[in-house]
Amino acid sequence: MHTDLVAALDIGGTKIAGALVDGHGRILLRAQRATPAQEGGDTVMRAVDDVIGELTVSPLWNRARAVGIGSAGPVDASAGTVSPVNVPGWRDYPLVERVRKAAAGLPVELIGDGVAITAAEHWQGAARGHDNALCMVVSTGVGGGLVLNGQLHPGPTGNAGHIGHISVDLDGDSCPCGSRGCVERIASGPNIARRALEGGWRPGPDGDTSAAAVAEAARAGDPVAVASFERAAQALAAGIAATATLVEIDIAVIGGGVGKAGDVLFVPLREALATYATLSFVRRLTVAPALMGTDAGLVGAAAAALSRNPSATAAGV
Amino acid sequence: MHTDLVAALDIGGTKIAGALVDGHGRILLRAQRATPAQEGGDTVMRAVDDVIGELTVSPLWNRARAVGIGSAGPVDASAGTVSPVNVPGWRDYPLVERVRKAAAGLPVELIGDGVAITAAEHWQGAARGHDNALCMVVSTGVGGGLVLNGQLHPGPTGNAGHIGHISVDLDGDSCPCGSRGCVERIASGPNIARRALEGGWRPGPDGDTSAAAVAEAARAGDPVAVASFERAAQALAAGIAATATLVEIDIAVIGGGVGKAGDVLFVPLREALATYATLSFVRRLTVAPALMGTDAGLVGAAAAALSRNPSATAAGV
Repeated sequence: MHTDLVAALDIGGTKIAGALVDGHGRILLRAQRATPAQEGGDTVMRAVDDVIGELTVSPLWNRARAVGIGSAGPVDASAGTVSPVNVPGWRDYPLVERVRKAAAGLPVELIGDGVAITAAEHWQGAARGHDNALCMVVSTGVGGGLVLNGQLHPGPTGNAGHIGHISVDLDGDSCPCGSRGCVERIASGPNIARRALEGGWRPGPDGDTSAAAVAEAARAGDPVAVASFERAAQALAAGIAATATLVEIDIAVIGGGVGKAGDVLFVPLREALATYATLSFVRRLTVAPALMGTDAGLVGAAAAALSRNPSATAAGV
Repeated sequence: MHTDLVAALDIGGTKIAGALVDGHGRILLRAQRATPAQEGGDTVMRAVDDVIGELTVSPLWNRARAVGIGSAGPVDASAGTVSPVNVPGWRDYPLVERVRKAAAGLPVELIGDGVAITAAEHWQGAARGHDNALCMVVSTGVGGGLVLNGQLHPGPTGNAGHIGHISVDLDGDSCPCGSRGCVERIASGPNIARRALEGGWRPGPDGDTSAAAVAEAARAGDPVAVASFERAAQALAAGIAATATLVEIDIAVIGGGVGKAGDVLFVPLREALATYATLSFVRRLTVAPALMGTDAGLVGAAAAALSRNPSATAAGV
């Protein structure tokens, strides 16, 4: 039986990935280009067109019923435009209209990349079976998305769940976004590394000053490295607790490079949650590492397209 | 024409109010008792029974189709129980079951009082016509509720929108809830007054040390009083901005005694929002004073009952 498919696009500052995905989240065909992030808007769009072109020439394409896009943010789903921070050539760029044109008029669904990851984790990952969940990516930046009442909550513009830029320290350090004491300003990989270096931690002979190197030092007992992860855990806990107190989630899923740090992150995170998640209705909150791999963005974009276009075969979205 | 009605209960630490409400939010009959807050649980329930009894003896009662309860929290709508902080005799008290019995088996809908106020402001007040809104009560405590995608979002336990206990200052002062730097710990009326007194502000000859007195001093230009309201505004702004960043609201409605302070609160609040609400999709966020009066709790409880029991006449809920 030939079931319907959706096309998925995952658009980031480094690469533009595309796929044809079935109703079970299986990827049947892939295409990819590097993002010419520093070029003009039309050049970036040509890379997107190339990816879509590789999909449309496939015999599978005539089974595609919709296109889902997960894009680096901010996005504006209501206007159909994107303004990715790391792609300066795209400001209020009419991506939805351009993709619709390239995809022969199929309906196009746009969400932010944090929302896409969340759709993937809810469909097939660590948030599966949870009706109210926060999924986060803690990496170079901190992003996220929400599932509420069993459904993805992208918000009117497709940016909801943007936990990296809520302030948990209103007098804290200035954040590049313009605010102060944002979760990202404390808990992102580069900020974990910066804090460790400022505290006197020094990298090994390979000179690796990434958060992963700090995590390794923390596992070996380096107190400065441990303290830097504890501070990140505190900021993440305050942000997760705020989210639970505001919308009643019962699980927070953490992915991204920092999310892979394991106990170095999760042990102090669970401790800090006991401090910040105090009201009776948030005490049952759990945290878990993400389960989806590097395809999360594509699978999540497909899930969004399936959920808005039920004519495509949606199994459990 | 005799339209259907709902019964509404507004249960607080001071009074228990009841009403029969029509599909337009008009109160046709009222009953009220003082809350015997320090008595045993059964004594408190007798006061509720008395209020319901006054409603059931009315000839209007046979038009009642459902009961809505807005209660001081925490509540647990999924279990049908309440544990109001200021009513120690009620802990996990099976209020829904007891009210159903007293109300001759009508369906009963339970929400927290912040959610009830929100339902009222969305139905008939300052959040009317807004599909995504935060409504707050800033008073002795700080509570709230959310409207998302055009619908009340009580959350699984009926407590969502509890903005008073999100931390905006992760290293800040301890809050009675067990956390640190909560919005309520900085922005509630008693904390505004405390901070003014600690800063050297002194009350007038009437000895009034309420937040209302501090607001009056601020309007007269007292710099310590002004600063205390500015700090409260900062905490509220950080909390409102966090909410907007997480779930994409476009209006925050502020009621309660502190909400009545006018420009002394709203001018610095709008300034602080410019600092904390930075991402493109939250910049259009506005703040407005609440429009509903002291009946907000009853009207909101009625709205909740109407929205879950569409057989009752719901006009615009």
